[in-house]
Amino acid sequence: MSGDTFGRLFRLTTFGESHGRGLGGVVEGCPAGVPLTEDIIQEKLDKRKPGQAGGASTTRKEADRVQLYSGVFEGRTTGTAIGFLVENTDQRSRDYSRVKDVYRPGHADITFDAKYGFRDYRGGGRSSGRETVSRVAGGAVAQAFLAGLGISFAACPVELGGIPAPPASAEDIAGSYGRPFFAPHPDVVPLWEERVRDVKKQGDSIGGVVQVEIRGLPAGLGEPVFDKLDARLAYAFMGVGAVKGVEIGAGFAAARATGSTNNDSILPAGEEPASNNAGGILGGISDGRPVVARVAVKPIPSIAMEQRTINTSGEPETITVGGRHDVAAIPRIVPVLEAMASLVVADFVLLQRRMGAPW
Amino acid sequence: MSGDTFGRLFRLTTFGESHGRGLGGVVEGCPAGVPLTEDIIQEKLDKRKPGQAGGASTTRKEADRVQLYSGVFEGRTTGTAIGFLVENTDQRSRDYSRVKDVYRPGHADITFDAKYGFRDYRGGGRSSGRETVSRVAGGAVAQAFLAGLGISFAACPVELGGIPAPPASAEDIAGSYGRPFFAPHPDVVPLWEERVRDVKKQGDSIGGVVQVEIRGLPAGLGEPVFDKLDARLAYAFMGVGAVKGVEIGAGFAAARATGSTNNDSILPAGEEPASNNAGGILGGISDGRPVVARVAVKPIPSIAMEQRTINTSGEPETITVGGRHDVAAIPRIVPVLEAMASLVVADFVLLQRRMGAPW
Amino acid sequence: MSGDTFGRLFRLTTFGESHGRGLGGVVEGCPAGVPLTEDIIQEKLDKRKPGQAGGASTTRKEADRVQLYSGVFEGRTTGTAIGFLVENTDQRSRDYSRVKDVYRPGHADITFDAKYGFRDYRGGGRSSGRETVSRVAGGAVAQAFLAGLGISFAACPVELGGIPAPPASAEDIAGSYGRPFFAPHPDVVPLWEERVRDVKKQGDSIGGVVQVEIRGLPAGLGEPVFDKLDARLAYAFMGVGAVKGVEIGAGFAAARATGSTNNDSILPAGEEPASNNAGGILGGISDGRPVVARVAVKPIPSIAMEQRTINTSGEPETITVGGRHDVAAIPRIVPVLEAMASLVVADFVLLQRRMGAPW
Amino acid sequence: MSGDTFGRLFRLTTFGESHGRGLGGVVEGCPAGVPLTEDIIQEKLDKRKPGQAGGASTTRKEADRVQLYSGVFEGRTTGTAIGFLVENTDQRSRDYSRVKDVYRPGHADITFDAKYGFRDYRGGGRSSGRETVSRVAGGAVAQAFLAGLGISFAACPVELGGIPAPPASAEDIAGSYGRPFFAPHPDVVPLWEERVRDVKKQGDSIGGVVQVEIRGLPAGLGEPVFDKLDARLAYAFMGVGAVKGVEIGAGFAAARATGSTNNDSILPAGEEPASNNAGGILGGISDGRPVVARVAVKPIPSIAMEQRTINTSGEPETITVGGRHDVAAIPRIVPVLEAMASLVVADFVLLQRRMGAPW
Repeated sequence: MSGDTFGRLFRLTTFGESHGRGLGGVVEGCPAGVPLTEDIIQEKLDKRKPGQAGGASTTRKEADRVQLYSGVFEGRTTGTAIGFLVENTDQRSRDYSRVKDVYRPGHADITFDAKYGFRDYRGGGRSSGRETVSRVAGGAVAQAFLAGLGISFAACPVELGGIPAPPASAEDIAGSYGRPFFAPHPDVVPLWEERVRDVKKQGDSIGGVVQVEIRGLPAGLGEPVFDKLDARLAYAFMGVGAVKGVEIGAGFAAARATGSTNNDSILPAGEEPASNNAGGILGGISDGRPVVARVAVKPIPSIAMEQRTINTSGEPETITVGGRHDVAAIPRIVPVLEAMASLVVADFVLLQRRMGAPW
Repeated sequence: MSGDTFGRLFRLTTFGESHGRGLGGVVEGCPAGVPLTEDIIQEKLDKRKPGQAGGASTTRKEADRVQLYSGVFEGRTTGTAIGFLVENTDQRSRDYSRVKDVYRPGHADITFDAKYGFRDYRGGGRSSGRETVSRVAGGAVAQAFLAGLGISFAACPVELGGIPAPPASAEDIAGSYGRPFFAPHPDVVPLWEERVRDVKKQGDSIGGVVQVEIRGLPAGLGEPVFDKLDARLAYAFMGVGAVKGVEIGAGFAAARATGSTNNDSILPAGEEPASNNAGGILGGISDGRPVVARVAVKPIPSIAMEQRTINTSGEPETITVGGRHDVAAIPRIVPVLEAMASLVVADFVLLQRRMGAPW
Repeated sequence: MSGDTFGRLFRLTTFGESHGRGLGGVVEGCPAGVPLTEDIIQEKLDKRKPGQAGGASTTRKEADRVQLYSGVFEGRTTGTAIGFLVENTDQRSRDYSRVKDVYRPGHADITFDAKYGFRDYRGGGRSSGRETVSRVAGGAVAQAFLAGLGISFAACPVELGGIPAPPASAEDIAGSYGRPFFAPHPDVVPLWEERVRDVKKQGDSIGGVVQVEIRGLPAGLGEPVFDKLDARLAYAFMGVGAVKGVEIGAGFAAARATGSTNNDSILPAGEEPASNNAGGILGGISDGRPVVARVAVKPIPSIAMEQRTINTSGEPETITVGGRHDVAAIPRIVPVLEAMASLVVADFVLLQRRMGAPW
Repeated sequence: MSGDTFGRLFRLTTFGESHGRGLGGVVEGCPAGVPLTEDIIQEKLDKRKPGQAGGASTTRKEADRVQLYSGVFEGRTTGTAIGFLVENTDQRSRDYSRVKDVYRPGHADITFDAKYGFRDYRGGGRSSGRETVSRVAGGAVAQAFLAGLGISFAACPVELGGIPAPPASAEDIAGSYGRPFFAPHPDVVPLWEERVRDVKKQGDSIGGVVQVEIRGLPAGLGEPVFDKLDARLAYAFMGVGAVKGVEIGAGFAAARATGSTNNDSILPAGEEPASNNAGGILGGISDGRPVVARVAVKPIPSIAMEQRTINTSGEPETITVGGRHDVAAIPRIVPVLEAMASLVVADFVLLQRRMGAPW
């Protein structure tokens, strides 16, 4: 109920702040026999690392090493709880007196105090971006399970700082992790690099849009009423810090279309309809086509420019948030969104099995 | 797990299809002593009725009368499960042979068959729009509870068939239920009426955008990780049939803004910041300002125009979906979105009480 | 969280009091295609009826007729929520002024007031024995599902008012529903009848022990840590009003045994071990043998003898509880315990399917 | 759903086996501001340690040191997830070839293989007694929270190897942790020591009965239908390995009593009724008196005597289970049962707060 657990049958429970001893989590419900090692998880965590991102991310070194504590025996899952841990190694002692007493605009400082009456002011506590380490590790387990069923996940930014990427083919996207910003198309990279340079110079920050695609999903996943597949995806994505919007398929454009243009034709096996406005989901249930979602990511709220705010006594203050901050949550948010999508899907796969599904 | 239950502490479990004996639900967790009668629920159900909506809705007569079965004694809730029922009275025997064998584009027919291998083909079964009757009734209980805490909900369309409504004041919105389409501003009504007339003539349908506002929410509601307040709202709204997108505060526009323009200033008590780009939520937790969300609603998929599809044997067909269908899910979706928002909030209010919150 | 829902994948949510408009419930998670009609449920409800029980039950006429509202189409479940209703037909207007102001010993009157600060004093509200109607109806759905997998449930009293029944064979037990008290052996019937006559004459009441057996359960059901099969059974049975103890297999006798006498030998397929002290459960997981539990049922607290108590103002009073009360919760509790066992098992069957179990 | 999580609002999720890298868990829902340190948890873990138990426990050295990873700041809980870890330090490399291929009677070896098709055969995997380390650590957090509300837990054996302890006063019980076996009365210690010596000599094992008492509980905890306070306690206790029976208050003796002797009188404030046959629970809800439960613990199944069994190919075998095994699960199970009781109560306290309870 405290919302540290995601999922129903395939479940991830996480703990950890940026300035405690470490972060970790427990994956429950993963079937027995799935090949799993620390290296498989580490590979996903490494995608989250700063530095490879064309200058948008910080230069902090985060040597996140995952350690498996349970649930794996001789390289395969045993079907029982999988505990994992990532130690915090980069907790430099810093001066927090400023953020202790003054609320940063766009951050959760003020709402944490309202909620708990008490706050670990060092680095955002549980609302720190670092919390996503556990999501990526947990999602790696989900992806290891789903890979065996032929289900895969590909997210990439389609817009950064107001500059959209050109339309990208599936092959383009497949190569995105090799490019700065995990860009879907090489041509947009220099444009985004220039945008980031400019914004950095101004001490400001930018947002963007990330597209998430799920391929290989069988038809029939999702529940018809409250727990629609798209509802769970929206829940999963909107629960990631900095996300302010989620759309499925045509999304907000569908609101401006007519039924005759928005409905996707249903064609005989072998023929692919021209459109996928439904984003692979009808009535909340997967229809066997690629599931496509887009996620709006707000600009990083920590900026070097001066902002108006108040202190914990309610008095007016101004604040500039210095330090080693990213200019954009993109691209580091990309593997986090893949992880969340995979947790949603793993959960529905197990849920559908209870109906007798053969996979 | 079948997704017929919404909420954790304040819970609504629903059942019922458009062509069974009736629909109903169970509300659990409502505190004892809340004033509640059938009339209070009926008032919300009546908002869902067709006819008052400027021609966008069907002319079917749905005399939905709610009956309370339990959990209320002498006009107040007892703290135990509240069971309610709405009988189906309009189940004309019709010829379903066509929809039995041919999948309607944009509908869940094909995905239901993929999921269950079996389908009640009369009127969409559990994915029928009629299912929302139970949501509105359940939400009425949540709203009765929250009204006592000074928390209120106001939704209205801000765009229909591509035509946006002019900016509306809080007073304008307060009067929206008295206008056709529940329009937020009187000036847009004739434009929307014309749009609906045109589309109807063509046998087509339209979508729109609905804005949902929550007022009077105390700061501190929402959980910091997976169960952010915005995450639960996105889950709630995206779980309503026809919804394809959800955004909070500035939403997708935030993705194109910079940190300096997107961050809302924090001002001393008494001064209201100029912007509410956060939509009243920081780090997933309410900050005491109005919570604002917008929801993209796709066009009704049932259209009189001919569409390509397949039958249950996989062979190509064409289909035109006649009958008494709405041209738009707006405005009937409006009270449904209010209901879902109220269920989310009632749940978080109870959840926050466990931390010792005094309300 | 209010505890009106039982189960995780196969779920029953109930509502209703003895003096409201009716009782009902929602079954979620039942797979599609299970043969189900009102008659199948009615048959189980009829077992709960008074009159057939050798004088231990009341002579009130409870014509409980179940009505199915949803989730069934053409005699088979559709996989969606199954709503059912049982109207209350026997709500005679009575004088409740006594129970309104004076707490009955052994009843929940005083704890309801402590919990809710408010109480529907007519007939016990939600803690009324009548609440079990919904359990039996929900369990009937579980049993319809499990019958298709060859899993069956047989409960019967093995002790009443201190008088144990003689050892009974499986055949004896199979015929128990045809006997007064659902007695497992014909010889004990006259002894129990005499005991009931005596107690009635004194205005007193008695308890007993019920044995529940589950047959046909495959090995592998149950989870190894908190959600052991026996833990869920204990939870299910202890959650039935009047139950004060639960034991599995040898139970409390195991506490007095040694390992060498308590361990059941494991024998090759075809050979049946002499003992089943484990009661068919090892490490919380079914081992493929019959699951055996015993349940202690306390005497009905409503007695005609004078008892000391207090009124709602805390002043001392005496009370005699007249009216049409049963002398024992046995045998009416028997089908309730079968229902609860079947809900536990249906839940675990679905849960195990997620691991890839073929049934 | 995999049953590694206990609780609804106050939740403990655990992971870990006896032969992995370590065990741990996550506590969610603990309110902010509760004093908590590693020492507070360690004190409870030390009770679980072998050696202090009059010879009934093994002489293995388990230097279990708990480490807090998150959720605590400056000695107080922050309201967010509390992650903790206990490294396994005593994983001697042993020869497991025998238990790998031959099922131990009374153990979960055979049911794990049936469930998962795959088993970590070293030390019982997830069904190892060592798993209770995480329960005790999690329960320590619950007890730290509840201590502030004046709620306390006291468990002690009342019977061992068939030898009951003499009736003990509250003061006797308060001193039980200082005695061998955590015995409630000094007189029974030599009798139990002799019993243990004899059994050890024979290579056999014994069981016993543990009584759990909860003091300081306010009236009103528990939910009236499925989630009765006694139902959750039964679930909690029966979910501990080796437990085969649970009774509340008079328990199985109530089944042999009459209503007039079993009903507890309700007396005005200040006067204490002579009996507590209800065990402090009426209709599933606490009545403000001490809650009393008794738990049947089976003999340790690992015995040096020869037993009949089969190997993983289904062929008959005999087995003697050597090694450093306890003769009884008592007294090491005692702090585990206290922990489980405290988790149940903490959960209900938070749950009751949602109704507006002031504590």
